[in-house]
Amino acid sequence: MEIGRSIQRVDAFDKVTGRARFTDDLCPRPILEARILHSTIANGWVKSMDVSRAQALPGVVKVLTCFDVPPHQYPTPGHPWSVEEAHQDVSDRRLLNQRVRIYGDDIAAVVAEDALTARRALGLIQVEYEEYPPVLTPAAALAEGTPPLHEEYPGNVLKRHTAEIPLPESDFKCAEDVLTFPGYHQFRGHYETQQVQHCHMEPPISYAYAEGERICVVTSTQIPHIVRRVVGQALGIPWGRVRVVKPYIGGGFGNKQEVLYEPLNAWLCAQAGGRPVRLEVSREETFQNTRSRHPISFDVRAAVDGDGYLMARECVAVSNQGGYASHGHAIVSNAVTGFRQTYLDQLAHRSDAWTVYTNIATPGAMRGYGIPQANFALECMMEDIALQYGLDPLAFRLQNLMPQGYVDPLNGIVCHSTGARECVEKGRHFIHWDELRAKYQNQTGPVRRGVGMAVFSYKTGVWPISLETSSARVVLNQDGTVQLQLGATEIGQGGDTVFSQMAAQAIGIPTEDVHIVSTQDTDTAPFDTGAYASRQTYVTGHAIKKAGLQFRDKVLEYARELLPGGEKLDIQGRNVVDGASGEVLLPLAELALTAFYSFGHSEHLTAEATSQCRDNTFSFGCCFAEIEVDIPVGKIKVLNIVNVHDSGKLINPKLAEAQVHGGMSMGLGYALSEEMKYDPKTGRLLNGNLLDYKMPTALDHPELHALFVETEDPSGPFGNKALGEPPAIPVAPAVRNALLHATGVAVNTLPLSPQRLVEAFREGGLLE
Amino acid sequence: MEIGRSIQRVDAFDKVTGRARFTDDLCPRPILEARILHSTIANGWVKSMDVSRAQALPGVVKVLTCFDVPPHQYPTPGHPWSVEEAHQDVSDRRLLNQRVRIYGDDIAAVVAEDALTARRALGLIQVEYEEYPPVLTPAAALAEGTPPLHEEYPGNVLKRHTAEIPLPESDFKCAEDVLTFPGYHQFRGHYETQQVQHCHMEPPISYAYAEGERICVVTSTQIPHIVRRVVGQALGIPWGRVRVVKPYIGGGFGNKQEVLYEPLNAWLCAQAGGRPVRLEVSREETFQNTRSRHPISFDVRAAVDGDGYLMARECVAVSNQGGYASHGHAIVSNAVTGFRQTYLDQLAHRSDAWTVYTNIATPGAMRGYGIPQANFALECMMEDIALQYGLDPLAFRLQNLMPQGYVDPLNGIVCHSTGARECVEKGRHFIHWDELRAKYQNQTGPVRRGVGMAVFSYKTGVWPISLETSSARVVLNQDGTVQLQLGATEIGQGGDTVFSQMAAQAIGIPTEDVHIVSTQDTDTAPFDTGAYASRQTYVTGHAIKKAGLQFRDKVLEYARELLPGGEKLDIQGRNVVDGASGEVLLPLAELALTAFYSFGHSEHLTAEATSQCRDNTFSFGCCFAEIEVDIPVGKIKVLNIVNVHDSGKLINPKLAEAQVHGGMSMGLGYALSEEMKYDPKTGRLLNGNLLDYKMPTALDHPELHALFVETEDPSGPFGNKALGEPPAIPVAPAVRNALLHATGVAVNTLPLSPQRLVEAFREGGLLE
Repeated sequence: MEIGRSIQRVDAFDKVTGRARFTDDLCPRPILEARILHSTIANGWVKSMDVSRAQALPGVVKVLTCFDVPPHQYPTPGHPWSVEEAHQDVSDRRLLNQRVRIYGDDIAAVVAEDALTARRALGLIQVEYEEYPPVLTPAAALAEGTPPLHEEYPGNVLKRHTAEIPLPESDFKCAEDVLTFPGYHQFRGHYETQQVQHCHMEPPISYAYAEGERICVVTSTQIPHIVRRVVGQALGIPWGRVRVVKPYIGGGFGNKQEVLYEPLNAWLCAQAGGRPVRLEVSREETFQNTRSRHPISFDVRAAVDGDGYLMARECVAVSNQGGYASHGHAIVSNAVTGFRQTYLDQLAHRSDAWTVYTNIATPGAMRGYGIPQANFALECMMEDIALQYGLDPLAFRLQNLMPQGYVDPLNGIVCHSTGARECVEKGRHFIHWDELRAKYQNQTGPVRRGVGMAVFSYKTGVWPISLETSSARVVLNQDGTVQLQLGATEIGQGGDTVFSQMAAQAIGIPTEDVHIVSTQDTDTAPFDTGAYASRQTYVTGHAIKKAGLQFRDKVLEYARELLPGGEKLDIQGRNVVDGASGEVLLPLAELALTAFYSFGHSEHLTAEATSQCRDNTFSFGCCFAEIEVDIPVGKIKVLNIVNVHDSGKLINPKLAEAQVHGGMSMGLGYALSEEMKYDPKTGRLLNGNLLDYKMPTALDHPELHALFVETEDPSGPFGNKALGEPPAIPVAPAVRNALLHATGVAVNTLPLSPQRLVEAFREGGLLE
Repeated sequence: MEIGRSIQRVDAFDKVTGRARFTDDLCPRPILEARILHSTIANGWVKSMDVSRAQALPGVVKVLTCFDVPPHQYPTPGHPWSVEEAHQDVSDRRLLNQRVRIYGDDIAAVVAEDALTARRALGLIQVEYEEYPPVLTPAAALAEGTPPLHEEYPGNVLKRHTAEIPLPESDFKCAEDVLTFPGYHQFRGHYETQQVQHCHMEPPISYAYAEGERICVVTSTQIPHIVRRVVGQALGIPWGRVRVVKPYIGGGFGNKQEVLYEPLNAWLCAQAGGRPVRLEVSREETFQNTRSRHPISFDVRAAVDGDGYLMARECVAVSNQGGYASHGHAIVSNAVTGFRQTYLDQLAHRSDAWTVYTNIATPGAMRGYGIPQANFALECMMEDIALQYGLDPLAFRLQNLMPQGYVDPLNGIVCHSTGARECVEKGRHFIHWDELRAKYQNQTGPVRRGVGMAVFSYKTGVWPISLETSSARVVLNQDGTVQLQLGATEIGQGGDTVFSQMAAQAIGIPTEDVHIVSTQDTDTAPFDTGAYASRQTYVTGHAIKKAGLQFRDKVLEYARELLPGGEKLDIQGRNVVDGASGEVLLPLAELALTAFYSFGHSEHLTAEATSQCRDNTFSFGCCFAEIEVDIPVGKIKVLNIVNVHDSGKLINPKLAEAQVHGGMSMGLGYALSEEMKYDPKTGRLLNGNLLDYKMPTALDHPELHALFVETEDPSGPFGNKALGEPPAIPVAPAVRNALLHATGVAVNTLPLSPQRLVEAFREGGLLE
């Protein structure tokens, strides 16, 4: 079995030694350097620009402004193209924007012989603006008289949609009736999440050069094939004239599931006569101009019957979309969907989701895609209901969990397997839940302790909301090993390692004999939409399995030519064997040499297959956290924390554990300290750098514990399901619930920062 | 029709503007620099080496000597691997050699932080030799008592083989009987060719770096997949652990059909801990240490009957192999085979071919692979027979030409098509043969003129002597264009352009919609043995056609899902059309979007196919040259020259013409000025640089004329056959025969340099 082995990462040695080559390592030098001029207003128009002094600076090749760019708009999110126009992504930006919608909007660019000259030239550009007051909240954006950010959206609502699951036969006519039924416990809550940034180690970087009539962009992206398409759209050239190369990347977390600066880089290259142009994005620009996690506010309601069953829930979610559509309405839509799932409503559920344009830095995809936000609301609510109505919060959750066989009434996704209950039991045992819940009752004094928990479910990939399609190619080498080539991307998560294990498993060879092509070059890599939605082990896994089995069949077909009479052949280890007895009949290395070089029948054995994945499944998990809170200083210390995950069969348990660790760390930052803050007067981001933005370090963490409940999901290619994003989801509500347990104070807004806690403790009467 | 169009080269713009990226353009900087220490003796042993001072030089990373390399030998020629050990290439060298066999042999290498340091370190290495006298000629090598260069070959004969075609029923018992039959005109001749170098613009260069447990070599090669194998052999590692990348290259002409310094570079990289190492080979090293054209001496005999029919011929060829086997016996073997072909012997033919080790710089593959040498002997002989027996040299040739349907009695190659006769007639007409032959009779004075001609035939690829196998892959892009990916290599000859035309033709789309992947990366490129033997348009052409048609079928199969009832679909232009009416039914761009993104059936359409070519065919041609010779100074001026070629159907006539021009230039250098010369005392190459080695420039040339006779070869994928090497073949004998016509002096040794001509004119009584 190659699946289930904790083999070392295939890229471990190269990454540890610094040998692995990232975009900037590949970049030819010398190269033209491009830098971007950002607006110094958050809302308004560029009236005019004087670039004469910049253009005159020696070493400046080109100065280009928002008045020079092609007049059409293009979309940026990393979604599969939709053949139906109604489902296509929102095209609401140009390569450079005359209409300024965020502080620091891209309004001009300089291409120069070196970076210093480019930067100096930026300082020589004079801009005249027409300025409007910054609009930073959905409330302000929706207020009457607020000028629209995009003329296509007069009220600043990018999209709103409501959904209500059909009621079963009952006396109730609609969800509202259930929610207001006096016979049920009624609950209302308001929860808010903040805007945070991905903080991947490597900021976005790319370089572009012309090849004949084509443009090649080498870039740090999660979605090379989608970048290819969007560059084509943005420049208005046929998509086949674009080539995208994706080397190793230093993290993405969803930020690089967006086509950020590749189109501008490609265009600047074309404007510079096709000479190679490098476009580096600073950390500050990464905060301001790339993407972030949406701040979403939730107004929720629930009705619970006397036996503690959820009868109905309602979720009204308002998402702050910032200046540009990015992933559009998809994220808040996913949030309200995620809010609906995990638990079962016996009767009714309704949701109302808003996506509102404002002038904050544009949020987009980030690990969890709306679910960390929704899960915060959901799991705070579950805790608050339990507290309000005297239910045991753990038992209340278990009692309402989505059962195996559950079918989402709106999108049809089926719960093919669930280890949710076992996860909760495992976490309960690990954290000593029952003892600590009792022990930490009725504390007094300035320092108190508490334990909290949160449960989550998470879809695997995007079907049936969007298309799931992936291809894989397997090529026999002359020594009997294989090359595995994918469009799916290694983005630091260990994808290449588990893909190799999957191919080995399907073919029947050791993983050591699978050489994965880590770099995607859209000219030759099979198509795959890329790394997002925790989809790759599931969706791409199916493609690898299909191609691997086809390859195996081709190898055995060729082997039959050499081994007449051998009907039940199989591949085991490095050999063709008798399937019944296991007897070694032919080493693969010998078969390979014959297949390549035989005068009788030379054939270069390869297999390439597309798998369109038409299924989805839920993975589950929970977090249990034990905290200590210093009330006077508002400081939470996490004493012990464990995530327990049901992600189906684990392809590589050690890597799975590492994935959970990373997600828990991200969850702790989300819970405790991270938040993008704006100057309300100018709309300028105040802490867009890693000094002022408080991302936790290893020193801020307790030991992170990751446990698993392995189920065998029947829909997964190898029994597996989503693991990439889930670890980040349940941490914040678990910590918030532990705080509630410790202090009795419900803090409903993230992060649980000292300032916010002190205010809450004052309000709650714990502090003067 | 995409075939037969003189479209612009697909790489024209990039190459003209300097945008095209060659190996050194891709090389990361800074990088470790490797340089090689070459022996200062031609024959002997390295007894000991003191590297302590070199190793102590600051900036030196490693000094490695012939005492450090792996103890096994490996082969270097660019041949497909043979699964039979007897047919495998000769393994007679190590990465660095203790046994010195040429002046300048590779005996040590330095890896340093920069090139200057590397070079300085070389100067600090002290070497103690045991020296033997240099052995520069086969005669000296074969002389009794000459110590063997390779202990496995005690008499210095790498290989000798004799062949005799079976006699038809007749009174003769063997070829010797026919050759000595008094009823026939008997002829004996001795012809000698010199050693020349390819002089490609870009000397060999490579850089190597480690990727995990694998080594990647980026190199200027004609044969990336073979380099992959040989690096594996040389380092003793599995071949799948080697990756080879071939960017644009600045010419090869056969020299880069050999695995020259890639194994050493890969090994030095491994010894330097996997850090990237660059190995540049200077022009001087290119002359001394890479390959060259074999000097071959020919002793020939012929018997001609009274009607001017060749009854029998004999060819004894002795090839000077220099210090290492390189392509081994294959080249002289091809030479005697080529000598046998072109003309038909009515009764008998015998050959005796020798490959002898000496201490000259090692010859290997070079455009024509033994045939320029053999054709010089053959066409001098034909001219000399005609002169000796009063035959018209043109009519004599035509009368004996290989007819269509000819089957080579030894290797079975069939003449599927021949335009040889038409070529001769076309050249005769162009040069005004009959007038000039008459006009230039009986000249006197110091400056005289003459016209000469030569005819040749040339095989297309290597089947059935060796394996012919090639794969191609076609991938649909999102805009309905395609990517074409091959293992076959563009080496400056225009391969990428004609491959694109072939794919377009097979699929039914415009060539503009075929994007060829020019760089071969052995991790992802389909397998192909590479650019040699004028094989690619023929052998790879079949693979392209096969993959293209498979791709077309897949596209039409998908189209049928969208166009129910459409049974006779076809692809024309950029559309799926009704095959009968030509009515446009579906743009390919629309089909592509649907195939990629349809919820109903998403499939990424690709096709990949291997074609094992089990046929061969002859191309033909001739050269007619008019010259003027200044007898006192021994200087030939070519007044007019034309090559006429039958290469079957021309894929791109303009490119074909350019190919012929290049070959004619190479032929003129071969005829008149080029020759590698050695110091007989030391064995040192005296003119191994482009100042002392006299390669002609455009200023030394007359206008070069290229004409074609287009046949439709039934075995070629598009009616086409060999064109790559042939243009270089007939020039030298045509010029030599023109000289004979002008002066009556037969100069039988190349080049026809002033020194040699003056000596010959003295001997012939034209000069005192």
